[in-house]
Amino acid sequence: MADIFERLVKNYGPLGQHRERAHGYFAFPKLEGEISSRMKFRGKDVVVWSLNNYLGLANHPEVRKADTEGAQNFGLAYPMGARMMSGNSNNHEQLERELAAFVQKEDAALLNFGYQGMVSIVDVLLSRHDVAVYDSESHACIIDGLRMHAGHRFVFKHNDLEDFEKQMQRATALVEKQKTGGILVITEGVFGMAGDQGKLKEICALKEKYQFRLLVDDAHGFGTLGATGAGAGEAQGVQDQIDLYFSTFAKSMASIGAFVAGDRAIIDYVRYNIRSQIFAKSLPMPIVIGNLKRLEMLRSMPELRQKLWDNALKLQAGLKARGFDIGKTDTMVTPVYMKGGVEEATAMAMDLRENYGIFASIVVYPVIPKGHIIYRLIPTATHTDADIEATLNAFSETKAKLDAGAYKVEAIPDMADAR
Amino acid sequence: MADIFERLVKNYGPLGQHRERAHGYFAFPKLEGEISSRMKFRGKDVVVWSLNNYLGLANHPEVRKADTEGAQNFGLAYPMGARMMSGNSNNHEQLERELAAFVQKEDAALLNFGYQGMVSIVDVLLSRHDVAVYDSESHACIIDGLRMHAGHRFVFKHNDLEDFEKQMQRATALVEKQKTGGILVITEGVFGMAGDQGKLKEICALKEKYQFRLLVDDAHGFGTLGATGAGAGEAQGVQDQIDLYFSTFAKSMASIGAFVAGDRAIIDYVRYNIRSQIFAKSLPMPIVIGNLKRLEMLRSMPELRQKLWDNALKLQAGLKARGFDIGKTDTMVTPVYMKGGVEEATAMAMDLRENYGIFASIVVYPVIPKGHIIYRLIPTATHTDADIEATLNAFSETKAKLDAGAYKVEAIPDMADAR
Repeated sequence: MADIFERLVKNYGPLGQHRERAHGYFAFPKLEGEISSRMKFRGKDVVVWSLNNYLGLANHPEVRKADTEGAQNFGLAYPMGARMMSGNSNNHEQLERELAAFVQKEDAALLNFGYQGMVSIVDVLLSRHDVAVYDSESHACIIDGLRMHAGHRFVFKHNDLEDFEKQMQRATALVEKQKTGGILVITEGVFGMAGDQGKLKEICALKEKYQFRLLVDDAHGFGTLGATGAGAGEAQGVQDQIDLYFSTFAKSMASIGAFVAGDRAIIDYVRYNIRSQIFAKSLPMPIVIGNLKRLEMLRSMPELRQKLWDNALKLQAGLKARGFDIGKTDTMVTPVYMKGGVEEATAMAMDLRENYGIFASIVVYPVIPKGHIIYRLIPTATHTDADIEATLNAFSETKAKLDAGAYKVEAIPDMADAR
Repeated sequence: MADIFERLVKNYGPLGQHRERAHGYFAFPKLEGEISSRMKFRGKDVVVWSLNNYLGLANHPEVRKADTEGAQNFGLAYPMGARMMSGNSNNHEQLERELAAFVQKEDAALLNFGYQGMVSIVDVLLSRHDVAVYDSESHACIIDGLRMHAGHRFVFKHNDLEDFEKQMQRATALVEKQKTGGILVITEGVFGMAGDQGKLKEICALKEKYQFRLLVDDAHGFGTLGATGAGAGEAQGVQDQIDLYFSTFAKSMASIGAFVAGDRAIIDYVRYNIRSQIFAKSLPMPIVIGNLKRLEMLRSMPELRQKLWDNALKLQAGLKARGFDIGKTDTMVTPVYMKGGVEEATAMAMDLRENYGIFASIVVYPVIPKGHIIYRLIPTATHTDADIEATLNAFSETKAKLDAGAYKVEAIPDMADAR
């Protein structure tokens, strides 16, 4: 008979295997100072490209004022208990009304955290007879919600409409054979790794051909895309055809919590049945108050969205002009694809941090196939032309070194902080 | 082919079915004013028995000061991103070290929210070959974690050691037949509804007979039980035999977030592999700072725990002296069991709120069997003798009315707030 703990420590997993050398540097790094495009990493000034502070709200003086006043007036404990039991307030309800109006829906339900919110939304919508059809690159919270689903699920190749139709046909045949159950399609407004938008317009057009309800996780699109910032659905002209619109507050709102919006009758169903909200504490009042302020700024300050886009387009144009491959992004999320081994990638990223003052997150094997490197750059409204210029130059120089084999080191140095 | 939304709105569920009449009163009520034993409900002063503010920390001046300063110095946005990517800080690490020391373990991992934290702990520990053996009254977050488990699980009757052994024998036979996999036992330190402690001592003694690892959710015991407040394991003298100790900050700490503590090697495994933390935002800094302050008070102010217990014992002795059935509680959680229909329970709870100024949460059919009523009273260190006396008198008077049939009304009045 095996011991669970013995098994676990035999293999610390794709990221954990490097922890002895990488803890505090590539994993669990500490970015210090006020959140902006320039922060401190291990005492050095760096240009930061790793934070989803898209609109620069994290440290906007009005946001900081609202956050402080909320904490001062209510403390971080209030209200206590689950929303349904003892954790409700006028502010929670006001934020729900304002969010619903902002994303052009009848009603919205606040969620105490995005991850568990989405897990439970998927769970609360699906009976064992229902079938889920979802994009293969869906976020972990969607996948975990689907892992609770006792019925069938069909995955379609990322943004592949031909495969989507194939899976819809399988799903339709199944529910017809069952003589019960419906179909829920789940995709994202913006895929956070590659930066490509979900094909919402095309999927919505297929509502003519197939019967399904559509749930969209627009974590990255909320506040950044569309004429008013209402997200990817608005940008693609199909916001009204998204049955349930979800976003976290952890990106453009620079906060925590989340919401789901849709028809009043369905939101009410969600409100009274969603497990992670009925059985867990309500969103603290200062966070609700802070989010009311952030939402007001999303609505009233389109210049922040404009600045984000100006920066994103400058960065992307600069990278393309210098010959970098940024893939299929059509949003501000900016991946940079390169080739090289894990050791080379590590040495290059260290060179960028230590000698060029550029803090960028990298993704390597085994998260992606061997020999590939992805830098994932997140432009924000706080970045300056100087930040972008410095970054483009640093990428050009380090890429030349990479191509010349300069990062082929014998062994990766130990970068871990003392623990 | 069915439409998912049409199915949902046909049945709003056990709680949702009453929403038109109960919203804002029994469901989603608003308790206003500073968190204490006396608050406002719909403009009226009430003695509140519904909040897990066990030690009265929610509005302690030192806590309020720490919460305000944390928000002032960092805002509610910092740090951004998942802990592993960009959301780490010295304060997060300090809180982990202090929590580990407080619950007498080598290491602890902070969790951004209790519910999703537990869901993912269960998930990260279990491979498809492992078997879970768990108490039938486990909290929803444990159940949801287990719903993701692809392997076997055996439930034992609540706190029933005979059945526990029976399920352990089944589990052991299964993993031996499989020739792979181990056993994880999951139970709670304190069961939040009935207030009885999990039989940790007896289960730990069975480690001699069976091979398993033990995960304990001590949400209610943390800070309230044991000589130092380290929880139910300490109270029962088996803290060192609990392999993984979990608690939320949402009860005695009057905050949000959670942690899991255990041996360094296993906590490191959890840290690098737990999905709800790797793929979701870190706990905001002001909440970490506020929790550091709360933990310091847990350690240094045993008088708060003493006051909680004085109040709990006074309330329970008073209820018993007046002939009330408080079941098998051996903690501060105080259920009061009565008999009556849903309409009677509703009318009685309204009478308590409107005419006696007592705000207590009730549980009725279909959450529990027809004809039963449970009031669940949560004493705290903030309750006064006058609060307890007023409540005992109100319960005596209303119970007499209940027994006399005075609450047998024709129809439940509409108590809903305008929406």
